[in-house]
Order: sequence, then C-alpha cells, then structure tokens
Amino acid sequence: MDGYAVRAADTYGVSDGLPGYLQLTGAVLMGSELDVAVEAGTAVSMPTGGVLPTGADAVVMIEYTQLAMSGTIEVVRPVAPGEGIVRADEDAAVGDELVTPGRPLRPQDLGMLAAAGVTKVAAHARPRVTVFSTGDEVVPPGTATLRPGQVRDATAVALAAMVAEAGGAATYAGIVPDDPQVLEAALRAALATSDLIVISAGSSVGARDETADVVRRLGQPGIWCHGIAIRPGKPTLLAECADVPVVGLPGNPRSALVVFRLLGVPLVRLIGGCTVPALEPTVRARLARDLPSATGRLDVVQVRVRDGVATPIFGLSALLSVLTAADGYVIVPDEATGLDLGTEVEVTLYH
Amino acid sequence: MDGYAVRAADTYGVSDGLPGYLQLTGAVLMGSELDVAVEAGTAVSMPTGGVLPTGADAVVMIEYTQLAMSGTIEVVRPVAPGEGIVRADEDAAVGDELVTPGRPLRPQDLGMLAAAGVTKVAAHARPRVTVFSTGDEVVPPGTATLRPGQVRDATAVALAAMVAEAGGAATYAGIVPDDPQVLEAALRAALATSDLIVISAGSSVGARDETADVVRRLGQPGIWCHGIAIRPGKPTLLAECADVPVVGLPGNPRSALVVFRLLGVPLVRLIGGCTVPALEPTVRARLARDLPSATGRLDVVQVRVRDGVATPIFGLSALLSVLTAADGYVIVPDEATGLDLGTEVEVTLYH
Repeated sequence: MDGYAVRAADTYGVSDGLPGYLQLTGAVLMGSELDVAVEAGTAVSMPTGGVLPTGADAVVMIEYTQLAMSGTIEVVRPVAPGEGIVRADEDAAVGDELVTPGRPLRPQDLGMLAAAGVTKVAAHARPRVTVFSTGDEVVPPGTATLRPGQVRDATAVALAAMVAEAGGAATYAGIVPDDPQVLEAALRAALATSDLIVISAGSSVGARDETADVVRRLGQPGIWCHGIAIRPGKPTLLAECADVPVVGLPGNPRSALVVFRLLGVPLVRLIGGCTVPALEPTVRARLARDLPSATGRLDVVQVRVRDGVATPIFGLSALLSVLTAADGYVIVPDEATGLDLGTEVEVTLYH
Repeated sequence: MDGYAVRAADTYGVSDGLPGYLQLTGAVLMGSELDVAVEAGTAVSMPTGGVLPTGADAVVMIEYTQLAMSGTIEVVRPVAPGEGIVRADEDAAVGDELVTPGRPLRPQDLGMLAAAGVTKVAAHARPRVTVFSTGDEVVPPGTATLRPGQVRDATAVALAAMVAEAGGAATYAGIVPDDPQVLEAALRAALATSDLIVISAGSSVGARDETADVVRRLGQPGIWCHGIAIRPGKPTLLAECADVPVVGLPGNPRSALVVFRLLGVPLVRLIGGCTVPALEPTVRARLARDLPSATGRLDVVQVRVRDGVATPIFGLSALLSVLTAADGYVIVPDEATGLDLGTEVEVTLYH
C-alpha cells in the first residue's frame, strides 16, 4: 500500500507519544527496476503495487507517518513483519490450480489467467447442435401470408437461442416435410457434423410415430425412450444413433421449449464439458391458487411473479403466449398430487 | 388434437352405454387447404394442429371414439362448443403486445415473434464500452517474463467478459502509461466512439489523483463522485464527460471487478435499453463465521457455498484468487455493523 518500506523491528514500540524516526533513502517507482535497499534505521517510500525493496519486510501506511524534516520520516504505529505487503505467491503459487475445470470461464477466471500470462487455454469445442423442424404445415418465419393450416416455425429460433445460452452452436437445418425417406436422408447427413441432433417433430400422432421409425433406422443403440412423464412434453423421444444423441421434441412449440430447457440445455452443457451444474436464478414465492397435478408425472407450470406471489398461467400446450407471459416456472414433482394455494414454491426465473 | 371435428350439439347426451354415430365425410391434412365441411350428423378426422373445417365447433379426442363401420364413427363422450380446439387469436390477437420491452429477448420471445412472422425487430444497439488500463507497471497479459515491479493486465479481459455478459461490446484501448497528457488524449479520442468509458486506474494514490484530474478536464458535467462507501472498491470514480459516462475503477484487479459487477454491469444494461433489472442466481446459506463490517460502508464479501453454508474468503483486495475461489458474494449493507455466525444470508452466485 502507499507508505514506506521498512524493517518492522525498527518500528517496535513506537506510538503517537513516542514516534520512531527513520532516514528516507529513496523511492520505489511503479514498474521500474529497483535500485534502493532498506537497511536498519532507514525507509523507502512506496506506491501501492510497488515492489518491496531488498532488506524491507513490511510497509507502514502513509497515514501513520509524517515527514519530520527533509530526509526523515516519523512513524507513530508499529508494524509486524509481512504487514502491508503481498507475497509474490499469495495469489497463486507454483503448482496451484488457477481456475476450476468443468464450467465456463468466468470473468474473474479470465483475469486470473491473464495475470499468470496464460492467454490461450485448451477448452471444449462448442457443441454443434443441428436443429430440424418437421411437418408439412410448418413454413419459415419469414412467410408473410399463411395459407389455411400453415404455421410459422416458432420453435427453431427459440431452440437456437437456448443452444447459444448453453454454450453450443446451433445450425438450423430447415423444415423437413412429412416424408420418412426425406427425413431419414436429412438426419443421416447431419450425423457426421453434429454433436447433438434436435428434431421438433410434427404434432400429430402419425408424424410422431414416423419420426420414431426414422430415428430407429439411423443407428445403434437407437431409442432410449419415447414418451416421458412430464407435462407439457409427454411425446418426447430420446435416442442415440451412431454415437450422436438425438432429441425428438413435441410438435407444440410450448411443449418443445419446456422440454428442451429441462433436458436439452443440460445435455448441450455436458457435451461442452460443463460438469458443474448451471446456476439458474430462482426466487421463493407463494402460490396464488391451487395447482392440481397427477401423481407419477412431473408438471412444469409457468408462473408470473409479483411481490412474492406466484400466479400460475394456464393454457393449452400449443400456446406460446403462456411462455412469453411467464417470469419463470414451478416444477410440481412427480410424487406430488398437487400443491395448495399459499404453498411456498421455488420459481426458476427466465433470464 | 388428434380426433374428429364435429358439431358439438351432435354429441350431447352420448355415453359409453349410448354412443352417438356420425358419418365420416373426410380428413383434414396438415398444411393443406380445406375442401371439406362438417354438417349436422357428420365428422371429419383431424390431426393435432390441423385447421378446423367450416361447420365444426369442437374436436372429439380420438380416445373417445371408434370406427363403428366403414364411414361411420361411434362417439362415447360429449364435447362442448370450443372443446379440443385453439382459436386463431388465442395465442395473440390483433393489437396484442407480443413481447415485453426493456429486457433482452428470451428464447420464447423469439419463438413468439417468429410465429407472428416478425423476423426483424428494432432493438437497442450494443453499448460500446471502451476499456483503458493505466499504470507504468502494467504490461499486456501475453508478456512472457515480467521485470521486477511489473504486473500483467488482469482487469481488462475480465471487464470485457462482464461487458459482453451485460450485452455490451467492449473495445480494449490498451495500456496507457502514467502520463496525464497521454491519458487525456486517449480518453478524448474515445469519447466520440463510446457509450461508456471504463478506466482501470493505477493503484497508487498519485495515479488515482492524476486520473481524476484528467477526467475533470474531459468535459461537463464532470465528476459525480470520487470515492464510494464500499469495500473493496472505495477509490471508485464516477463521472460524465460530454454525455459519456466514465467509470474509474480501483487499481487492484479484485476491487475493480467487484465494483464493475455492482455498478458497471447495470450501467451497461441500462445504456443497452434494459430497464427491467437483471435476474441473478441466488441461494440462501448460513454464515460459517462472523463477518465484521463498519457502519456506513457496504461490504462485498466473497464466499464459498457448500451444503447451505457460506464460508467467507478473506484476503487483501489485491488478490484475484479470492474471486476465483468464490462461488458468489454476500453484501453486508452499510447500516449493519457486521453479521453473526449462523446468520442466514443471500448469496449472489457467479454463473
């Protein structure tokens, strides 16, 4: 700190009533080589961050000194050896781990690496996530006028944003029509260049079954499960084909986004080498009304949060507005049969 | 949903014991124009997401029907008008606000915009943040070997990462030596191309005072405050010169990062049009030891969190390792004189 480099022993016993006097023999300048040393009975002026001169073992803060006469300082507080200084190995010693692996580098981690002269680090590549939309009714978002029965692809752009948040790089592979041969060819082509394939499947039962058939033909070990005990999101398909995980999402945009946040985002992070779980902002709030739920099924309920009260937003799983109106969501675990009005719940907040 | 489009009135009173019979007159296909209508006594098969044919006002789920004979279905549950269907304006009606302004677009917001055919939106530009490092002792992170007294610039890279997290675009303007003329010229040149200027100032009192003098000369209204009641971070400078906010950070990397997280990040967000406060992940934990604090000063204490216990990490403000070891921080408000062991505190977690 700003003050004087001294030999601590020279300050023992000094006080306001009985100051010590030290001869000022030089000054340390920032960023310069040292050409001064501290000997018994002497002091060298120091800026914060300066290098301790040879011979000194402590720094007296400037507040506890004054210039008694030209070339002499008065010291009114004693210092112990090591006081007012930072050892060269205090931030990191040889052999120390500079940053923790298994999570994204945080700003302070980059700072620590820079301080140690590390400007390049080996890191996991961004997971390459290929996103397919399927369905004869689905058209690109830029389509100005819809024919009856058509819907714009709302899911792909939202999935790409979630992939990016999770540290991945999404490639949008476009909209595949409801034709098993075309879908199979498209998925097969994506296998070689993807660390994860995501299909937002058609919403009808027929389209879902066709997607499953196609995925089954893509490679071993194949489908892990088709249908999970979650609402919304039941018709989710989880598979692994030729070493590439494949996630088949429900056709309803809202269900697709809910499932991808719960299952897809952690998967992207894991593929990207993040073994430390992500931290989500949460808030505790009281339920504004009863939440019915069926045992054996995990319910993801979107909520608005105001002044510590969480108000569930209900609506068909096809409605995206339920998600855009929500501040976050509450999970009703599969063993619960619902939650009563007034129950304190943990809301996971959207960023 | 998957099922049959019907006139609801045709199903009133039906049951397992007394099914209703409807003539199957066609099928709706996904994404195709309709060429069928539902008349009294008839039904049209529907895939989920299909368009309701003219004349129908409800959809009976397929689970509550069976094919009685070729061309006729049996219905065993009544439906009310509107059941099993989504109205065209149910997600968003003409004139509805699609997404909330004042915060970054979330994945679901992008989905909603895409669904509405909005592929371009007017948004705030990324705030241009120019980052200066100062100090004769500071050298670039890539410097392989340090001379005595030199330190690598650890702050700039960490600040740039925080700026990016806050939605800004950081420009690193390099290391300016401790020369007021050079610093003034560099800052003046940056004014025209910056929405915010951040200076990680020299750590010595002299360097800090020089920085303040230079900032004072840059333009009106000038310095708002020099020195804030926070630890670490006391020697922070807040100014506004020629309409550009200027933040002078303490020279110690750790102090600089703590202050920038608390003051700089919200400023970058605000300049970028985010009027809704950012949501940070937090966790409640009990203090593993007493936290002393002085009244009239806000203390930012770095902590490790394990199993609901927050263990403060102490160390000189020069030490970056305190930040890299931390999972988050606890704020001891300025009116408190400290917090006792066992107190439940809110820890703001680093992502």
